[in-house]
Amino acid sequence: MKKFMDEDFLLTNDTAKKLYRNYAREMPVLDYHNHLSPREIFQRKKFANLTELWLAHDHYRWSAMRLCGVDEDNITGRASDYEKFCALAEIMPLLIGHPVYYWTHLELKRFFNIEKQLCPETAREIWDKTEDLLQSEGFDAVSLLEKMNVRALCTTDDPADSLEWHIKCKSDPSMPFAVYPSFRPDRFLGIDKPAWHAAIRQAGVNTFGELTAYLTASLERFCDLGCRSSDHGLTVFRYASGDADDVMRRALDREPLSETDISIFQGQLLRELAAAYRKKSIVMQLHMGAQRNNSPKLFSLLGADAGGDSVGQAVNICGLTAFLGDLERIDALPKTVLYSLNAGDTDELATLALTFASGGAKVRVGAAWWFQDHKRGIEEQLDRLMPLGLLPGFPGMLTDSRSVTSFVRHEYFRRILCNKLGELAENGQYGGSIDDLGALVRRLSYGNTRLFFGFSE
Amino acid sequence: MKKFMDEDFLLTNDTAKKLYRNYAREMPVLDYHNHLSPREIFQRKKFANLTELWLAHDHYRWSAMRLCGVDEDNITGRASDYEKFCALAEIMPLLIGHPVYYWTHLELKRFFNIEKQLCPETAREIWDKTEDLLQSEGFDAVSLLEKMNVRALCTTDDPADSLEWHIKCKSDPSMPFAVYPSFRPDRFLGIDKPAWHAAIRQAGVNTFGELTAYLTASLERFCDLGCRSSDHGLTVFRYASGDADDVMRRALDREPLSETDISIFQGQLLRELAAAYRKKSIVMQLHMGAQRNNSPKLFSLLGADAGGDSVGQAVNICGLTAFLGDLERIDALPKTVLYSLNAGDTDELATLALTFASGGAKVRVGAAWWFQDHKRGIEEQLDRLMPLGLLPGFPGMLTDSRSVTSFVRHEYFRRILCNKLGELAENGQYGGSIDDLGALVRRLSYGNTRLFFGFSE
Amino acid sequence: MKKFMDEDFLLTNDTAKKLYRNYAREMPVLDYHNHLSPREIFQRKKFANLTELWLAHDHYRWSAMRLCGVDEDNITGRASDYEKFCALAEIMPLLIGHPVYYWTHLELKRFFNIEKQLCPETAREIWDKTEDLLQSEGFDAVSLLEKMNVRALCTTDDPADSLEWHIKCKSDPSMPFAVYPSFRPDRFLGIDKPAWHAAIRQAGVNTFGELTAYLTASLERFCDLGCRSSDHGLTVFRYASGDADDVMRRALDREPLSETDISIFQGQLLRELAAAYRKKSIVMQLHMGAQRNNSPKLFSLLGADAGGDSVGQAVNICGLTAFLGDLERIDALPKTVLYSLNAGDTDELATLALTFASGGAKVRVGAAWWFQDHKRGIEEQLDRLMPLGLLPGFPGMLTDSRSVTSFVRHEYFRRILCNKLGELAENGQYGGSIDDLGALVRRLSYGNTRLFFGFSE
Repeated sequence: MKKFMDEDFLLTNDTAKKLYRNYAREMPVLDYHNHLSPREIFQRKKFANLTELWLAHDHYRWSAMRLCGVDEDNITGRASDYEKFCALAEIMPLLIGHPVYYWTHLELKRFFNIEKQLCPETAREIWDKTEDLLQSEGFDAVSLLEKMNVRALCTTDDPADSLEWHIKCKSDPSMPFAVYPSFRPDRFLGIDKPAWHAAIRQAGVNTFGELTAYLTASLERFCDLGCRSSDHGLTVFRYASGDADDVMRRALDREPLSETDISIFQGQLLRELAAAYRKKSIVMQLHMGAQRNNSPKLFSLLGADAGGDSVGQAVNICGLTAFLGDLERIDALPKTVLYSLNAGDTDELATLALTFASGGAKVRVGAAWWFQDHKRGIEEQLDRLMPLGLLPGFPGMLTDSRSVTSFVRHEYFRRILCNKLGELAENGQYGGSIDDLGALVRRLSYGNTRLFFGFSE
Repeated sequence: MKKFMDEDFLLTNDTAKKLYRNYAREMPVLDYHNHLSPREIFQRKKFANLTELWLAHDHYRWSAMRLCGVDEDNITGRASDYEKFCALAEIMPLLIGHPVYYWTHLELKRFFNIEKQLCPETAREIWDKTEDLLQSEGFDAVSLLEKMNVRALCTTDDPADSLEWHIKCKSDPSMPFAVYPSFRPDRFLGIDKPAWHAAIRQAGVNTFGELTAYLTASLERFCDLGCRSSDHGLTVFRYASGDADDVMRRALDREPLSETDISIFQGQLLRELAAAYRKKSIVMQLHMGAQRNNSPKLFSLLGADAGGDSVGQAVNICGLTAFLGDLERIDALPKTVLYSLNAGDTDELATLALTFASGGAKVRVGAAWWFQDHKRGIEEQLDRLMPLGLLPGFPGMLTDSRSVTSFVRHEYFRRILCNKLGELAENGQYGGSIDDLGALVRRLSYGNTRLFFGFSE
Repeated sequence: MKKFMDEDFLLTNDTAKKLYRNYAREMPVLDYHNHLSPREIFQRKKFANLTELWLAHDHYRWSAMRLCGVDEDNITGRASDYEKFCALAEIMPLLIGHPVYYWTHLELKRFFNIEKQLCPETAREIWDKTEDLLQSEGFDAVSLLEKMNVRALCTTDDPADSLEWHIKCKSDPSMPFAVYPSFRPDRFLGIDKPAWHAAIRQAGVNTFGELTAYLTASLERFCDLGCRSSDHGLTVFRYASGDADDVMRRALDREPLSETDISIFQGQLLRELAAAYRKKSIVMQLHMGAQRNNSPKLFSLLGADAGGDSVGQAVNICGLTAFLGDLERIDALPKTVLYSLNAGDTDELATLALTFASGGAKVRVGAAWWFQDHKRGIEEQLDRLMPLGLLPGFPGMLTDSRSVTSFVRHEYFRRILCNKLGELAENGQYGGSIDDLGALVRRLSYGNTRLFFGFSE
């Protein structure tokens, strides 16, 4: 029996081990999409204990605890930090096969040098040891990221954001890696949501033209700070032709909008934005297929992003195809990364990407995401992308996370990747040298991200 | 080469073998959903031969035979029992990889101590031996179930059923296990089907209010006999707001109903029923995604449940989400088990279950079902549920079957489960002890079912 | 480490090796669906070099090159044949896991006796050697197919085709295998496409009745030349009742058609054709789920079938069910093969096929197709078909290809099939003899195709 998560964790063959040790492990991290706080980075935030690190924002751990029957008080509620930690320790051994189980133990190993399983028997010891370490030198947000060999990271920011903390990060000569904003105009696209009106007021605009001008100007500010990409969270991909200005006027008059109205507004605004991204050489990321805030109870208790989201229905592939086609027709298609939370969409997205590859492979399928971001999900995605030719251009791994220690997921991904490629080589399905395969591993761990997003790091 | 279906059948590693032998094997069976006849149980039905046992009702075997080109006469038609058995034996070796192949041989082993493959060469010998045994002591319906270590089982019953045989089973002191009814009001929900009118006449009701009162009263009768759950077979999940009483009135007047009308009636009735289940602490089972009676020829020949059903399109996840959300909002969400016959729905259902977990993990994803109830289907489901956190609360295996010998499927499931967990442990992906893992196996084989459905057995 | 694509390529266990060597390898090839040119066959076309063989029509290789960043000039453009070949060699090692990687090397081995990996270092040597060989005896189209042990092949032909080259092939006594046309009336069904009007003019018909008469007469001509099947490429499966003649009249008057109009016309025409196929004992093939010509740029550059196609949304299973049911009701259901490019449809199609099996298993699921035609896709399909009982009647492998050397894909398929069955036997999941299993392998490699399509070869 293999030892628990030892140095060969997830590496089941010799080629895989060599690929990971000699090619993947040392590559720097370019995390092109996460939800870290630039303020906490600039301020070198320190963490009181593992509960603050793990349970302040992490809806993965929250959901896992809820499903195992832990009371909300012991998750997001009034219990003490130590009580919450013990509740997590209590259910941890039940999470065999769950990414939280592997992330948790990778984080314990890489940051705290702890090899034991977290469980009721080890909870006290792990709590004490980590609490001490977290107070010590080298455990602030920046130091923790540095340990992960981060060269650049991209946070997710609202177009109305002052980018104050990004400006400070940029002018901080001791910041050991680049911190860039990403442009996420979801509030301005969500004409069917209450928050849209506040966004429009904040922007001080009255027409569709003014809105696009406002967003384009904001994008300029972002780009001045090194912004490499935009991001869009789209529950359903909507796209229709029509008079977006008219829809916007009616929305401002609080008239009810039809499904078609929403599709016109979102579709046309996204098209305007895409053309702007193309002009600024910015990558457009489309995150599709998440269904949000299902539980009224959870939403009223904790608001958005609290574990109330789930995998939505299959992506609107016809609309997406028309959107990309229309952009291509007017030569305004930016570099694009497609993500669907619904793993059943992978073939559709991958082969769609294929079809827009002439004259430059601009459209990629992004990393397995959110509920797919684990061994089975990543393997399944690689298994589907490889035979469709999407592997060589794969844009690389990202964390999509609110937590600095979550960057161990890059290691997790690289191990799975090396194992998959190693298996093929071991089984007579690769005719090149290990160096050739190692070069591919390096591309997929670092090089492709650098090239596609235009990082200089 | 491993021996054919020996004691290590489906167990490919040492940890798996230990888990099965030391933890799973001895756990009792709580079969919370099947289609056994309480009458045949009470009467200790005996079976003339394997054809009666295997080919009287089993649409799995019928379909397999049809696909291999066996004439309907030799399946459900006029041929003699022995001829039908020979036709089954003839095609059996072609069924490698088909669950019927493994169920058949597990049944031969566990009940008749026969180790040989059923095929033309062994047909006569197996026929003779089993025919003799079936006439002997210990081969009636109750004895066969006892051999499977059954502690309780739940049949599926119509609200109009007198429950006569359940009453008899309950008052039979020699019955070695509990036999409970389950509440299945499909006939009353199916306002778009001819059988609905007969059901309404039988109930003697005229309004939506009277109908819900009738069903609620019937549910009381079921609960008095130990009913633990309801069940709903829903081709398409329909849910809409509106005046259900008005729709019902128009249906009674034989006016044509729109798709929306049907959604209003079914949605509102299901909501009323769900609230009633919640009050009675009854689990609500929703079986979705089966498309029924495709073949007009087969339906006219044999009626429903004869092999004319197939996997339907993806589940209506938006409607289902709204339904659960509305129930949660009025604090009327009962414990719920979601099943889709479409395996592509697993992630959507599993993550939907996640979102209703706050304050008690009430919503579960049920066992891989019908066309998914085999090694690949079960493994695929475990592979998808585990990384989403749905494994620890998994409500357990069921047979969904009309046959008493089909209870070997619990063994089949447990072997697959142990193998999966054993593999993770063997590959360095589990840090706990074998006893911890064994405890999880016991939960998933028996404990969770007991707890979730509230069995006292 | 296993040697690169040696004689045990894809065969990972002893039973698999025996099955392939002793049962599968020697079976003849009946390629019942491809896009070869009967003219090139009759004329014993010779190929100048590997670029003509591999890059003249092969959208798989084109797409793979585009995705790796190769300029269109070096793919379909003005570059020299050798430059294009070098561009292909350059990206080849990146294609690990891609079917083009394995097809390419199987073709090099089987036709040219070359064992090396194609890469920049070997490009010149391979170019020179193959260029010489291609000029020599035994490398014309017919000889290359003969090397693959082809007994019969079916091309894909338009109903308006004169079948001139088929007539010539038929009357050529030195043709070593049968060459049959297949009936593909897509142009006549595509009432929503510009090409439909040209087709109707060509046919010289004015009414729906004249159109069906024209097509039925054409089918007679095809059958006289040994046609075994029809084929339909259906982006979306459409089926509705209504007055097809009225729709056709309006289309001829250039009136705009609704979605329902198109469904009526296509549905009714397909029904008429299906009845004609049944009368002529012709197999009906339905290829569904491909979304065509996504990229306006690629389409304007290269036209159709150039890499602009992708996997479409889930199949319209309700419409398809109604279609098959209506045909069965009037006893006009022909033998049918269902294909969807969307692998997520496999369970729906397979279980649908199940339901039409009474009185003769007429409906089959076809081989994994196009973007699914590779190791993972074939394995996934076998894994899904086997437990549903669709394996024993599987109609066999096909190339669906424009290239004569692509016939190595039959070997590729057989290896995967043998490996899958061998694995089950090795793991104690098969109780029969190797000869029984070998007989199944032979059915699936050759026998089923012969029987289902009624080949005499």
